[in-house]
Amino acid sequence: MSILTYVGAGQMASALTYPVIENGHEVRLVGTPLDREIIDELRRSNFHINLKRTLPDSVKYYQVEEVEEALKGADVVLCGVSSFGVDWFAENILPIIPDDVPMIAVTKGMIDQEDGSMITYPHYWESRLPEGKKLSINGIGGPCTSYELADKDNSAVAFCGRDIETLRKIKAMFTAPYYHVSLSTDVIGVECAVALKNAYALGVSLAVGIAEKNEGIGVQHYNSQAALFGQSVKEMKQLLNLVGGGEENIIYGAGDLYVTIFGGRTRKIGTLLGRGMSFDDAMEELAGVTLESIVIATRTAKAVRRLAENGKVDLADFPLLMHVDDIINKGAEVDIPWKAFETEKF
Amino acid sequence: MSILTYVGAGQMASALTYPVIENGHEVRLVGTPLDREIIDELRRSNFHINLKRTLPDSVKYYQVEEVEEALKGADVVLCGVSSFGVDWFAENILPIIPDDVPMIAVTKGMIDQEDGSMITYPHYWESRLPEGKKLSINGIGGPCTSYELADKDNSAVAFCGRDIETLRKIKAMFTAPYYHVSLSTDVIGVECAVALKNAYALGVSLAVGIAEKNEGIGVQHYNSQAALFGQSVKEMKQLLNLVGGGEENIIYGAGDLYVTIFGGRTRKIGTLLGRGMSFDDAMEELAGVTLESIVIATRTAKAVRRLAENGKVDLADFPLLMHVDDIINKGAEVDIPWKAFETEKF
Repeated sequence: MSILTYVGAGQMASALTYPVIENGHEVRLVGTPLDREIIDELRRSNFHINLKRTLPDSVKYYQVEEVEEALKGADVVLCGVSSFGVDWFAENILPIIPDDVPMIAVTKGMIDQEDGSMITYPHYWESRLPEGKKLSINGIGGPCTSYELADKDNSAVAFCGRDIETLRKIKAMFTAPYYHVSLSTDVIGVECAVALKNAYALGVSLAVGIAEKNEGIGVQHYNSQAALFGQSVKEMKQLLNLVGGGEENIIYGAGDLYVTIFGGRTRKIGTLLGRGMSFDDAMEELAGVTLESIVIATRTAKAVRRLAENGKVDLADFPLLMHVDDIINKGAEVDIPWKAFETEKF
Repeated sequence: MSILTYVGAGQMASALTYPVIENGHEVRLVGTPLDREIIDELRRSNFHINLKRTLPDSVKYYQVEEVEEALKGADVVLCGVSSFGVDWFAENILPIIPDDVPMIAVTKGMIDQEDGSMITYPHYWESRLPEGKKLSINGIGGPCTSYELADKDNSAVAFCGRDIETLRKIKAMFTAPYYHVSLSTDVIGVECAVALKNAYALGVSLAVGIAEKNEGIGVQHYNSQAALFGQSVKEMKQLLNLVGGGEENIIYGAGDLYVTIFGGRTRKIGTLLGRGMSFDDAMEELAGVTLESIVIATRTAKAVRRLAENGKVDLADFPLLMHVDDIINKGAEVDIPWKAFETEKF
């Protein structure tokens, strides 16, 4: 039996209690300062108020001030914060994880740097480690929504990190008849692919709203969604190349894009925008919902624009990303640049 | 004004009358022996009984015995037969197309050869040309359902062929504000990508049926669909490599896979199989429906198995294709080989 301490009691981390408990391990679920109510209710009834599922009986719950106790004797730490908690995690949790305890994060995203390069969260956290501290920081990517994982539907994901042996050890704790885990030491490739899909899921969802605007709510037109899907795969492949990730990770990107398009929050904002709502109005309609897609799209576009200024890429190769950025950050109306997607290869 | 003669009055060819007529060209739509009723009704009312749309007024209609008249003065010939009409087209139409008239086909598919290699329809037709005859044979690939094209939704496709100038000339006749055309001289890559998606759309659709079996008709589970989508992209990329097509064509494959999963016939058979119906019963339920996915999956699996016998590929790299083939051709029950999808990359 191993002890796994989860920091962040969001939906994905909480859904990941099922396979690990089933494998006979101890799980300690620690709330962030934002998770206080979640932990309170879990302690009362084992019911997760956001995931809307009852967690396994034996999960142990902790509020954030009890985190040091929760880390005692831990074999693995799982980081379950959202993109918005990345710095909080760096400042408050990274320094107190023992050097010999590997960590794995469900947080998906990338951070753009001054020179236009982007780094993954594992790399960012490594750069934020206190001087002299060493930590094995791993990540989880791939198409997996928390609800369906909690319901034990089949899900396939990738664990990535620098050391394959560490990944194998962590996988043994998480794998389940319904949770299928591939391993990769290409951290940049996996993390970049699954981060980018957020931005592009918004792009594809625009077509959902455009069709609804023209023909009525609920009408689905798949040719235009598929065209944007193909364009997304193309731009994501180019971005993978740019950041030095293996192109084969498009597998995770495409799968993750697929599930995100059907998944909820990102589809909602894309659909509202496609219907013709302004970005500000759409954000107001979705008030209180965390939208990582907005953060990722903005960051990626910013990075690509800076690379273009330095002559390293051609903005014309990223027409969909640029349009999504124009909508989000420059008040542009939705007007898909279809003709810019056309190419000639000979 | 140019004259375009379409041979085959199926849904896709008929939908392609709209942009070409709008561009001011003459379209002559010739039915195959199977299209007699379609042409009869079109002559009466311009209404296409399968596409369920009224075609543009000025389209001219021909029964198959009038094909030579329809070809007189044609600038381009469009082949609109299905996979099942490929040999009929080779025997009856190819010989009577003048050498200087380029042809473009909407037929998607590939043919497996004795040695396990597969060839595209354009290549197959080239091999079937009468001795000494030369013909420019081009193809159309990409995610585009006929209904949505007829309704002038935005669709993005690829025209492929040996000569970029010919492709540009044909594109000029077809392009429209809602019909976006990329060009590629990588015929194998484009044709292979869009043919394969038929087989894999069936594979992804299995997850639709499995979820319905467990939870009731209409329930959608996207994690498992996305996992199969990712696995499909992976196997399709490998197959593209095998046939010598550029991997970047996965853009068309992924987009086309996306639209096919939502598109109708292939999804139906996959869903029925996923629910637990035997292949024979499912085919009976869908009696009369042409299922190119079955043909493509069977041919591709056969080719891959033969390549494996010759030591050229490892069957373990194609677990989803093999499972689909086992279901279709060996009476196997649906039992997704999830663990075979797991990989290690380091």
